[in-house]
Amino acid sequence: MNRFALKIEYEGTQFHGWQTQPGLETVQGAINLAVKNLDAFSEGVTGAGRTDAGVHATGQVAHIDLKKDWDSYQLQQALNFYLKPKLISITASAKVDFDFHARFSAVKRHYLFKILNRNSPLTLEKNRCWHVRHKLDLKKMKKGASYLIGKHDFTTFRSTLCQAKSPVKSIDKIEILKATSSTGSSIQIKFTARSYLHNQIRSIVGTLGKVGSNSWVPEQVHLALLSKNRAACGPVAPAAGLYLYKIDYKSDIFS
Amino acid sequence: MNRFALKIEYEGTQFHGWQTQPGLETVQGAINLAVKNLDAFSEGVTGAGRTDAGVHATGQVAHIDLKKDWDSYQLQQALNFYLKPKLISITASAKVDFDFHARFSAVKRHYLFKILNRNSPLTLEKNRCWHVRHKLDLKKMKKGASYLIGKHDFTTFRSTLCQAKSPVKSIDKIEILKATSSTGSSIQIKFTARSYLHNQIRSIVGTLGKVGSNSWVPEQVHLALLSKNRAACGPVAPAAGLYLYKIDYKSDIFS
Repeated sequence: MNRFALKIEYEGTQFHGWQTQPGLETVQGAINLAVKNLDAFSEGVTGAGRTDAGVHATGQVAHIDLKKDWDSYQLQQALNFYLKPKLISITASAKVDFDFHARFSAVKRHYLFKILNRNSPLTLEKNRCWHVRHKLDLKKMKKGASYLIGKHDFTTFRSTLCQAKSPVKSIDKIEILKATSSTGSSIQIKFTARSYLHNQIRSIVGTLGKVGSNSWVPEQVHLALLSKNRAACGPVAPAAGLYLYKIDYKSDIFS
Repeated sequence: MNRFALKIEYEGTQFHGWQTQPGLETVQGAINLAVKNLDAFSEGVTGAGRTDAGVHATGQVAHIDLKKDWDSYQLQQALNFYLKPKLISITASAKVDFDFHARFSAVKRHYLFKILNRNSPLTLEKNRCWHVRHKLDLKKMKKGASYLIGKHDFTTFRSTLCQAKSPVKSIDKIEILKATSSTGSSIQIKFTARSYLHNQIRSIVGTLGKVGSNSWVPEQVHLALLSKNRAACGPVAPAAGLYLYKIDYKSDIFS
């Protein structure tokens, strides 16, 4: 057997998330179908992060075990051939040791959440961001986010469906940046953490949206966190704004 | 009568270009249909630039004459309401004098051409750029472009269907910029000119692609220009990479 790591990009709109589900089109399911053409007995890919329906990725990582010792570039080309015309692209591939595990070896996971802040309807960015029509106060959002940095019980900010044993997670960084493009004012929120609870980022972003809209004072984010009560969370922001853009491992496997 | 200027954004993939054509879905046609709900006798919108099928816009400008003296914000909202769910958005609106004409008052037209330069298939940028799989030499492309700045007979770089009386045009600027995003290496080519011939930008970009790929030396662009022969042109670059992003008028009408 030979183990390969794959770097994967996808447009999440038409997929029911990353993880294989019977009878539904998922990213993992589509890749595994492509893999069957190369190795009928493969157990398929294991991903670093399970993204929800509608969530995009530019830097998802997965590993796969194959009987043949593929040239990694040939493997990438072959998988992309069989994935066509689905909006999934293998953007890099590398042979790795068997102690590499896409999920368990991941040291940090980086997500980006995009908000387009303008009044008029979206065209080019439709399904690619959260469309917020009213002005958002970035300074207050940054203040609200500051309460969430570090190790906390994130019960307030996780889906009731979350299967993690513990609600305690550590967020290393939440960066909130403003950019002005020809299509409007965009706000980018970057998250860095080892791992996340189900819906944690979208719950945080929806809550920060409350703060940015002046419906909540920034300190309410702190109170919501301390309450450890899902009902204290703001609305969950839409999946379309979320991008898994980078997974860190001990070494840069695709370099 | 009252004249209004509209700033318009659209995702061009599903439209047969800007200009109304019987039996085909066009941007101008779709806007005129929306306008009929506000003013049954309106003659519809006149655009600053006629974009081809598949070409996008973030800053198209058009004017329209309406019987009612609309509040410009209300007009924008009403048009966007009737345009739904088409990927056309009125992003600004302003009342203007009758001596303002979207097409004839335009002083400069700015276009952006986006190339995504990577080997793997596109997902998030599909239909939004020209996908070039092999490496492009930017320095040589810049050298090739330099021969086209200024006033020239652009017969080589215009469609055989071009209806302009003269093939002589002035290009003020061609800027070639490199950007690296999480989806790959992107090349942006920005054009500034008062006006263009039909397919002029796409003919130039396709030719610069030849130079960037080392199929042509940069000086061949000069020879192609001097030949005044359409057959000397490189391939026409795909519409999906082209964006009309700004029209300059004597004053900033939407400020």
